[in-house]
Amino acid sequence: MSHYQAGPLLSQIDFPKDLRDKINIDQLPQVSDELRQYIIDVISEIGNSHFGASLGVVELTVAIHYAFNTPDDQLIWDVGHQAYGHKILTGRRDRFHTNRQKGGISGFPKRSESEFDTFGVGHSSTSISGALGMAAANKYKKDNRHHIAVIGDGSMTAGLAFEGLNHAGSLQDTNLLVILNDNCMSIDPNVGALKEYLMDITTSHTYNKVKDEVWNLLGKISKFGPNAQTIASKISNALKGTLLKHSNYFESLNFRYFGPVDGHDSIGLVNALNDLKDIPGPKILHVLTKKGKGYAPAEEGNATQWHAPGIFNKETGEIIKVIPKSPQPPKYQDVFGHTIVELAEQNSKIMGITPAMPSGCSLNIMMKAMPDRAFDVGIAEQHAVTFSAGLATQGLVPFCNIYSSFMQRAYDQVVHDVALQNLNVVFCLDRGGLVGADGATHHGAYDLSYMRSIPNMIVSAPMNEEELRNLMYTAQLENKGPFSIRYPRGNGMMTNWKTPFKEIKVGTGRRVKNGSDVAFLTIGAIGNYTTKAIEILSEKNISAAHYDMRFVKPLDELLLHEVFSKFSRVITVEDGCLMGGMGSAILEFMADHNYTAKVVRLGIPDKFIHHGTQEELYQECFYDTDAMVKSAEKLMDGIILNAASLVG
Amino acid sequence: MSHYQAGPLLSQIDFPKDLRDKINIDQLPQVSDELRQYIIDVISEIGNSHFGASLGVVELTVAIHYAFNTPDDQLIWDVGHQAYGHKILTGRRDRFHTNRQKGGISGFPKRSESEFDTFGVGHSSTSISGALGMAAANKYKKDNRHHIAVIGDGSMTAGLAFEGLNHAGSLQDTNLLVILNDNCMSIDPNVGALKEYLMDITTSHTYNKVKDEVWNLLGKISKFGPNAQTIASKISNALKGTLLKHSNYFESLNFRYFGPVDGHDSIGLVNALNDLKDIPGPKILHVLTKKGKGYAPAEEGNATQWHAPGIFNKETGEIIKVIPKSPQPPKYQDVFGHTIVELAEQNSKIMGITPAMPSGCSLNIMMKAMPDRAFDVGIAEQHAVTFSAGLATQGLVPFCNIYSSFMQRAYDQVVHDVALQNLNVVFCLDRGGLVGADGATHHGAYDLSYMRSIPNMIVSAPMNEEELRNLMYTAQLENKGPFSIRYPRGNGMMTNWKTPFKEIKVGTGRRVKNGSDVAFLTIGAIGNYTTKAIEILSEKNISAAHYDMRFVKPLDELLLHEVFSKFSRVITVEDGCLMGGMGSAILEFMADHNYTAKVVRLGIPDKFIHHGTQEELYQECFYDTDAMVKSAEKLMDGIILNAASLVG
Repeated sequence: MSHYQAGPLLSQIDFPKDLRDKINIDQLPQVSDELRQYIIDVISEIGNSHFGASLGVVELTVAIHYAFNTPDDQLIWDVGHQAYGHKILTGRRDRFHTNRQKGGISGFPKRSESEFDTFGVGHSSTSISGALGMAAANKYKKDNRHHIAVIGDGSMTAGLAFEGLNHAGSLQDTNLLVILNDNCMSIDPNVGALKEYLMDITTSHTYNKVKDEVWNLLGKISKFGPNAQTIASKISNALKGTLLKHSNYFESLNFRYFGPVDGHDSIGLVNALNDLKDIPGPKILHVLTKKGKGYAPAEEGNATQWHAPGIFNKETGEIIKVIPKSPQPPKYQDVFGHTIVELAEQNSKIMGITPAMPSGCSLNIMMKAMPDRAFDVGIAEQHAVTFSAGLATQGLVPFCNIYSSFMQRAYDQVVHDVALQNLNVVFCLDRGGLVGADGATHHGAYDLSYMRSIPNMIVSAPMNEEELRNLMYTAQLENKGPFSIRYPRGNGMMTNWKTPFKEIKVGTGRRVKNGSDVAFLTIGAIGNYTTKAIEILSEKNISAAHYDMRFVKPLDELLLHEVFSKFSRVITVEDGCLMGGMGSAILEFMADHNYTAKVVRLGIPDKFIHHGTQEELYQECFYDTDAMVKSAEKLMDGIILNAASLVG
Repeated sequence: MSHYQAGPLLSQIDFPKDLRDKINIDQLPQVSDELRQYIIDVISEIGNSHFGASLGVVELTVAIHYAFNTPDDQLIWDVGHQAYGHKILTGRRDRFHTNRQKGGISGFPKRSESEFDTFGVGHSSTSISGALGMAAANKYKKDNRHHIAVIGDGSMTAGLAFEGLNHAGSLQDTNLLVILNDNCMSIDPNVGALKEYLMDITTSHTYNKVKDEVWNLLGKISKFGPNAQTIASKISNALKGTLLKHSNYFESLNFRYFGPVDGHDSIGLVNALNDLKDIPGPKILHVLTKKGKGYAPAEEGNATQWHAPGIFNKETGEIIKVIPKSPQPPKYQDVFGHTIVELAEQNSKIMGITPAMPSGCSLNIMMKAMPDRAFDVGIAEQHAVTFSAGLATQGLVPFCNIYSSFMQRAYDQVVHDVALQNLNVVFCLDRGGLVGADGATHHGAYDLSYMRSIPNMIVSAPMNEEELRNLMYTAQLENKGPFSIRYPRGNGMMTNWKTPFKEIKVGTGRRVKNGSDVAFLTIGAIGNYTTKAIEILSEKNISAAHYDMRFVKPLDELLLHEVFSKFSRVITVEDGCLMGGMGSAILEFMADHNYTAKVVRLGIPDKFIHHGTQEELYQECFYDTDAMVKSAEKLMDGIILNAASLVG
């Protein structure tokens, strides 16, 4: 049980059935207020959560669960960081304060957590396709359920959402309700033509434009006398509906379009949803909401800041920042953000590309400094990569920054449009490795493995800020072909990180420390844990060497010959999946060169890892400092560890 | 030099410059006819090529190269199998008869082949993004080029195309011409709402609908007298332009829309293209064409059949089929197509899904037999997978059939929507391994590697038709979670393939043959080459055992303990990439269990493999029968092969 106190109505609602059974429709505004307050009470204290998005859909959440018979009627929240109200209304109020903590509830809807979470989400734009699959099954099984996908205007820009709409529009005998939650703002301000279009229909520019044209026309044929103006007025009013309908992006895809309606009028929403129940086929309800609604500091403040504000004083709206006593190392993303500007100042060929994550990956620094050379292309990873390929064909050097986990969505474009053409696109994969609180959907677990399978691709990861800068510098020096650089979420380890640029020869690692008993081969920032482990081992009289590989491909064969000539015990460490990862690449090298050292591979085992702090998860996956120490000790004792079997 | 004779005008055109310098606009119809005839002459004899698509764009090809200053103006063909006319006009007429043969020209535009091929293609829907990248670079560099993407209506259904449009629509200061080549037919008839929409605007239904509404309205206000009808007529005519504009999918994405125009009027096309040069920003020209145009048998016959007809008698239109003397083994795709129907008859939960490849993967058999249980979702791999996930949440068992190479486009959906939720979706990956003539863009090289990295995923490949059937049977027996089955392009090896169903325990391989000197571990149909190799080795007094692994994940650990207890020399064989593939999985097993056998891994090396017959490419990649024999011999001589270094 938590110490958070729900309001008088909300405290009677454990499940949506209570909402439907105990609450009159005219009480819904109060339920909404109480739900909003509960979210503010909890999130302001626990921090580490999303915020603005859930406040914006409080009324919509209440209305959907009131109008529909959930969970029999099936509801999918796209992305899902706006689903806190949904979680609170569906049996998880008392656990809500454990949000995103290890062992607590997930920050996203998750099938294993509740039958009300009909489809696990996290990555954007899956909801239409998922709900359509459910609806098609419903039709086939002759069940009688409603299927509702709630999707934001930002998520609507992804190709997957379009593919879902296009298919749904051709299944006129399948019932599907798409609710477009339009706040003109995903994490960063939404971009692309669709956004302008939504603005346009919202504000009826299209209609006004046509009306003007009718008036002009009538002016020209004014010989018909004063009646002409009256006729025009009637015609143009009558056309308004028709026009809005036919000028509609969604109608062009065979969806029936309704709206826009006020997303903060819970009673109006319930009535609209009830009306829509009887309308067959694919249909869309366009709902206008405001992120942060009902909490003045969020509503009036910077929406990007209030997307996930951390802990804040709910009375004053002051976001609590812990001011460290000494200078702290920067976030890796900021090292990227500042470094690309430095490099771009020297090299006019450099361009920056991000799919809708300018503040998340810090490309916003370049977007401000050189707006003509940095592109936010919207939630569109596939396009981001192929667009970068197009830039590269013209001799430019695009730095395409995509979170490791989201890069999965552009795998084909990396293979087919960039690597096959050997184009010099630099992929900066932020959030490589375990990301912490965002959990299973967001871990960047697979990139070292899926990138190294691709011919021509250089696969690198820096151990610290200096290496990140030098890899970025190296990647743009001359035509290096496709070059990927992955680095983790969170802070680095150098307070003086703005080191001078130095080329790193592609395919070379470095010996960090000499040793004689056992060798650690590490890739990326997890190597800093190895440094600590080696100190502890040294106290135990085990002498461990440390090699920072820097490149998973091409491997530093010279260095590896040194390692395997000298060591019969080797531990590989990576913040990535063991299946096919760097350790696996090392084993391939050994097989090809007839080496037979005993090798223990540490990394992410072959299972999905859920949420917790990064530190907790490294421990769970058995590649924190302690695990490295233990592995070396066992290896010295002649025990070969199958690291995966030791995982928590 | 080839023996094919170009017509009198075409024979003067080696490059587009000749077309522009030597040919009058009124001669373009004749150039088009000659170009068409040349394509017919060559393709009817060499076979093994695409056909209908290139015939359909002959006039468009001639018009683009006449109106624009290629290659300074940059042209991208989407997919590219319609670009034969383009190749013939751009310096490759005399090599055109080598199309798709090893060492000959590629069946797709390819940057390394010609400066006129500005962007390598093969997978669909990349052209808008690629051209937009070029156009953005052009703007930045203040070059003065035109950028033209030619994309079919089928390709327009993919999410990537939408993402490109959406971004382009927001860059009103960047010039881009998209030519929509609308033939209402990709390889299979196009599906989805967008298709209906294109039909609609083509036939002006929208306009007619509005016109009717205006007339009705005027009927109601007829008190204004007879003039009312005249006014209405004028108004509705004036509104036509406005309406078509505003009712337009493309206009809703901020593209200027022009058309539809006749795609077989070369002179009209040149005039339209010249007009469009002066219009800034993103714009789309809607061109209506007919696949197979100008060759009666193709124009009037089955468009799917004439997509790639093989050799045919150009006079009679008879497609030449070599009738084998004895019954031949079936194609793997047909084993899939028939087997899924058999299984679905027994198990009402089974559904079939294909993204636009019903004839290519033979799901058309099920679509005909049980139309309510088989879905062609259009060129939309991402949606195909997430839609399947939605079906699976309702207890159904979707068999989602996607070519291995195209599955790259749905990697995130496999990870995030299926595997993470442990849903029982069966992925049938057709065209796994080297596919032959389609070349580098289409080889299914990476799937064993990228699939085995994903937790929960079962990764299997049958050695023959019986195993394919039994794996399909096994995958639907009970909730098995995500289950992938990959098989190659082409024919199997069993004439009596319709064997009774038998469960294969997940994660079990089989010993095909005993032996004592060396063990072959194979995955999939390439194992049949091993059978032959072992016979040859036996004549050389080398006794080789053969294990058909069947599963790359989970590995058959029992069987592997047997292998590594018994053999110190092991050869792994896979028709897939060596980086992270099955051989790599075997090495991981060895490291985890402290085995030290000498292992040679045969498979696709770390480079892009181009086109040729499958047999030629296996040889090039050093995993044909001969390579297996050589590898075993060397291994017996104590020489450890680094197979990759031996690759042709």
